[in-house]
This record gives sequence, structure tokens and C-alpha cells, in this order.
Amino acid sequence: KTDINTVPHRRYNILTGEWILVSPQRTKRPWQGKRDKNIVLPQVVYDENCYLCPGNTRASGPKNANYDSTYSFTNDFSAILPEIESSTVENGFLIAKTETGKCKVICFSPNHSLTLPIMSIKEIAAVVRLWIQEYFSLAMDPTINHVQIFENKGATMGCSNPHPHGQIWSQSSIPTEVLKKQQNQKKYWNTHNKSLLQDYINQELDLDKRIIYTNEHFVVLAPYWAIWPYETMIVPKKHYAHIGCLNNEEQIAFAESIKVITTKYDNLFETSFPYSAGIHQSPTDGTNHDEWHFHMSFYPPLLRSAEVKKFMVGYEMFADPQRDITVEQAVETLKKLPVEHYSLSTK
Amino acid sequence: KTDINTVPHRRYNILTGEWILVSPQRTKRPWQGKRDKNIVLPQVVYDENCYLCPGNTRASGPKNANYDSTYSFTNDFSAILPEIESSTVENGFLIAKTETGKCKVICFSPNHSLTLPIMSIKEIAAVVRLWIQEYFSLAMDPTINHVQIFENKGATMGCSNPHPHGQIWSQSSIPTEVLKKQQNQKKYWNTHNKSLLQDYINQELDLDKRIIYTNEHFVVLAPYWAIWPYETMIVPKKHYAHIGCLNNEEQIAFAESIKVITTKYDNLFETSFPYSAGIHQSPTDGTNHDEWHFHMSFYPPLLRSAEVKKFMVGYEMFADPQRDITVEQAVETLKKLPVEHYSLSTK
Ligand SMILES: O=P(O)(O)O[C@H]1O[C@H](CO)[C@@H](O)[C@H](O)[C@H]1O
Ligand SMILES: O=P(O)(O)O[C@H]1O[C@H](CO)[C@@H](O)[C@H](O)[C@H]1O
Repeated sequence: KTDINTVPHRRYNILTGEWILVSPQRTKRPWQGKRDKNIVLPQVVYDENCYLCPGNTRASGPKNANYDSTYSFTNDFSAILPEIESSTVENGFLIAKTETGKCKVICFSPNHSLTLPIMSIKEIAAVVRLWIQEYFSLAMDPTINHVQIFENKGATMGCSNPHPHGQIWSQSSIPTEVLKKQQNQKKYWNTHNKSLLQDYINQELDLDKRIIYTNEHFVVLAPYWAIWPYETMIVPKKHYAHIGCLNNEEQIAFAESIKVITTKYDNLFETSFPYSAGIHQSPTDGTNHDEWHFHMSFYPPLLRSAEVKKFMVGYEMFADPQRDITVEQAVETLKKLPVEHYSLSTK
Repeated sequence: KTDINTVPHRRYNILTGEWILVSPQRTKRPWQGKRDKNIVLPQVVYDENCYLCPGNTRASGPKNANYDSTYSFTNDFSAILPEIESSTVENGFLIAKTETGKCKVICFSPNHSLTLPIMSIKEIAAVVRLWIQEYFSLAMDPTINHVQIFENKGATMGCSNPHPHGQIWSQSSIPTEVLKKQQNQKKYWNTHNKSLLQDYINQELDLDKRIIYTNEHFVVLAPYWAIWPYETMIVPKKHYAHIGCLNNEEQIAFAESIKVITTKYDNLFETSFPYSAGIHQSPTDGTNHDEWHFHMSFYPPLLRSAEVKKFMVGYEMFADPQRDITVEQAVETLKKLPVEHYSLSTK
């Protein structure tokens, strides 16, 4: 009987309820297309022209604190603003609503030349703590119903400043992608009174085919329905609705998981591996969200080398996401990679 | 009262039922991020190393016909294959199904150096005719329930060969993006016994704020909910479920619309404007699809110049699509651009 993993097939995403196309036979396709330039990281710990370095004045006027750990401030070019007078368009097929909220910039370190994988676990844990603080303080605002924490790493992912940083966009509406995941978790919770994601990771731990790393509190795996070539997700073993549930020890275990996966990423092509990462968790809309099991996902575009990425274009935009190498092949590769960063290796 | 178009707001997509975030106040944001190389088109009408040029032998063995108009063949590295023995995975949270179908390559012209905007209307009409032929012949296969016609234009959109060509991926399942649009068209059809998209374009024709071009049979507009900076769509005025409904005259009017919008695109930044374009139309699953109104959409990534594009990354991947310049600003710009191609202009 044919092994489904060797022929074209669709896989179902239990979180979003959508399907993806897998074409494992297609990895041998030659590549004559676009190659990006090699990624070069800054060598200086302080750059006087960087608007995120400590003490520098930003384009729009304000001056950064002389911070020595993490630092957050309101985005000078926020996509969403607080205190917009509410207004609605309902004119036939034209439907629109004002949106309010706050956008924040989260500096991971004062050191301009670092990235998460080359920061210490203690330093990454400080970032986790800042995320938790921001999540709680934004949640207190009754007009903010969703808090999206994310990082765009690398110019390939539209990041315009190499200083280690992420963002938070918080808003009054619950975004589409979050609603999809909420709906499927809720359905499962209502039927089984159990966490969909917890039951899922337990199955994956049993099968041990897509697990890349575990520690006492977290699992790092490539979900069965992953879209991006080396997509992964970090899931807490306990059923926690949001990052605010983590105690000190668990925060460190989370930081450790982040360090391990981002280090393996860098080691894969011996480059500063670009990705967008984000945390999906309970909305802050004041209603009960027992169904939510928080998780952090990494969507990295690189496919064959530091220069050749996967393009989510034509078919993917009009039909379904598509991948060539299977999730299991990607996991095998990631698993074997060392947890010591190539640039720090003494070999 | 605040004009909603000047402040952050969400717009509703009547076709997919999803929302997008618009941040009109953010266009002044400085850009220090990634710039792509300038796009250079091939100068030769025939390239002996091109696997799409007439008479050449392709990497996998077969030889192209000595075609002098359009030409189609089965993709040598098809993502979907016919005649795969069917197989299913239903193991707890792991759900997968084999997928069958055919992938085709559609050469637009024997001339290696052309692109749609610099082809004649007659030549583009030949492409339209080939799409129709392929749609019908794939539809005849009872195992093929959906036919996705698309073009990835330019290296920025993952295209690895500048020879003018598009693709068709046809398959047994109906893709997610298509199902979303089908559901909303069906709901409207069942309630009003009218075409959602026809009523929509009639409202847009009345308002005349987002219309870029019209001829007797087609409307080219930027939909109210457009995501990409210069996203547009070509919609037939008549309620046609698929491109097979077009008569000769209408095929030429369609070709004319394609020529106009792609020429305006090239003229915008005086470059060969990259995009992914695709046709959404009635599935070929043998059931009645009165609800479907076919349309061709263009998703172009360029934002500020030939080198600076919009990135759909962090927030967009985890939450909702987001845009800065409003649809109406984009339309104003596109409307003013000449319909004569800049490279052919005698001025
Ligand atoms: O089939 P091609 O042109 O080799 O490949 C291109 O289009 C495909 C369909 O949108 C994508 O899956 C690929 O990532 C892209 O590089
Ligand atoms: O906010 P930044 O870093 O300037 O911008 C980057 O991230 C945003 C949020 O994902 C995107 O909308 C932009 O396209 C991207 O360039």
C-alpha cells in the first residue's frame, strides 16, 4: 500500500479547520529563481543611527531610556491608535468600522548586535517577563480585547532594523486567524471538557515523529499541518490559556525552548535565520476562555539555503497553502542539529 | 465627524467573509528595510537555455513544440499528480487524504522577452482562449473538481523563468479560499436570487470611487476590502459562472482589460510590475453553481517603488491582513496612469 507521505496529499489543521497541500515528490525540482543576498548581522553593540539603541533619539522626537535589559514603548508609527472616535460604514456592500488599540515596540536587549538565539536563557526570560507584563497591562484596558505579540526577524520578513526587537499590536476586535483557532478549541472543549492542544501534544509525544525538543514544561514540535518548510510551535504541557499563567520556573523553561529552536534554526544554514514568530493565546475580552491553550509559532521562509526561500504566491494565495518537503523530513533535520550556536562553537 | 478613511479601521470582505485592517495614517512611516534589486527583463526573443522557448528540450526530457502562439503542457514537477492510489490517515489528530489532479504550464507567447502588458490584445485573447480550452478539458475529467488558473509574474513572486507563462493546478478537492467565496456567494444567491458580485459592481459603478477602467463587458476595480497596495480585480458585467461563458467579443474585451491593468501596473513605477494573478470561478464538481460570478484578481506586492514592497508578515500571518495606503488612494493613482506602456511611449 502507498505510503501517503510519499505522494501528493492534503493535511487538516485541527486548530484553524483548514487544509494544506503537501507535495513530497516535488523536492527534486531544480531552482533557477530568486536568491536573496546573504544575511549579515551588525557587529557593533551600539549604533548611533539605530532608533532602538539605548539613549538614542527616535525620528519622531522621543528619546529612549538608557535601558540595560528589555525596553518597551508605544510605536511611533502605530497601525492602530487609541481614542479614535468610533464610526461605522454600512453602505450596501461597503462595510467598515473604526478600530482602536495600542501598538508597542519590545526591545529584547540594549545590545544592537544580538538576536534571541545568541542571548542567554536569563536574558530571554526577561523578554518573556516583559511580554507577560504587557499582556496584563493591555488586558486591563477594557477597550482592548486582543493582544498580538510577534517578532519579524530579518529583512526577508520585512524587518527594517536589526536591533533585537519584537512588537505588540493590541486592538478592540479579535482577528480572523485567532477566531478560527478559538472556534475549534471551543468546539473540542465543549465536547470533551479537555484541551484540544494538550490532547494533541500528548498524541505527538506518544508517536515521537514530530517532536524536536522537550523540557519539563514545554514541547517544541512541527505540527502535522505545518505550512512553512521549517515551521514549528512551542506548546506548554499544562493547559494554560495565556502566558500570564507561567510561574518563574516555567518562564525559564519557555525561554530555554525559544533558545533551543532559534539556535537550531540558525545552525540549519549557518545564517541568522529569518522568521515571523507569534503567540496565540486567550483574547482579553473579559469573557471566559477555558478553551484556549497558548502557543508560540515560528513561520520561517527559508527552504533550501540561506538564499532560497519558499514563496507563498499564486496557488497559495488563490487556493491553499502548499509545501514540498514533508514535516517529518524537516523534523529529522532540525532534531539532529546541535543546540550550541554555530557562531559560538569552539570546533 | 471623523472621516473613517483617515483613521485606523477594519473593512469587511463580502466574498471571503473576513476582515482586513487599514491604517491610512501610517503612510508617512520612513522605510529603512529591504530593497529588492531593480527588475531587468530579458532582451532576447529566444533563449537556448529557457525550458519554455519553442523547440527546446526540457530538463526532464520532453521537447517543446515549435509553437508560434500559445502552448500548454503538463508540469514536469507537478505538485499534484493523477492516478495516485487513494489513501487516508485518520489517526486521532492526524488527518490527511491523498489528492489527485493535473498541473499544467501555459506559455503565453513563443517570444521570450514579452510579458502580458506588452503583448497585443489579439495575442492576449489567444491566452484567454487557451485558458477556456484547458478549463473545459480539465472539467471533463470526473476526478477533477477544481481548476485554478494563475500567473506568478516576476522573481519577487517566486517565478523562476521570465518567459511569459502561467500555470494551472487542477485537483479533486475544492480549496479553502474558493470555498469561502463560494459560501458567501451562495448565501446571497439563495436569499436574493441575484449575483453578489454583480450587485456589488453595480454599486461601485454608481459610486465611481474605486473603478479604474471599464469597457462594454468588463469592470476593472479595486475592491473596497483590497489587501495588497495596488490589488485589483477584473469582473464581467454579466453574471457568468466561469470563463467558458465568454463569447468571442467578450474574450477580446477580457484581453483588453488585462492589457489595460497590467500596463498601468508597469507604468506605476516604470518597471515590469510583479504580481500573482488568479481566476476564481465555478468549481467543476458536477453540481449546480448558479451562485458563482467569475473574476480575475491581481495581488501585486510593490508599495513605494520598484524596490520596496509590502510585507505580509508577523501581524498579517497571526492576525489579519493589513494595509497602509487606502484603496481609494491607490485607485486615484492607477486611474491617472496612461494606457500606453512606458517602454513603447514615443514621448
Ligand atoms: O511552480 P513554480 O513556478 O516552480 O513555483 C512557484 O509557484 C508555485 C505555485 O504558486 C509555488 O508553490 C512556488 O513556491 C513558487 O516558487
Ligand atoms: O512595523 P514594521 O516593523 O515597520 O513593519 C513590518 O511589520 C508589520 C507588522 O507585521 C507589517 O505590516 C509591515 O509590512 C512590515 O514591514
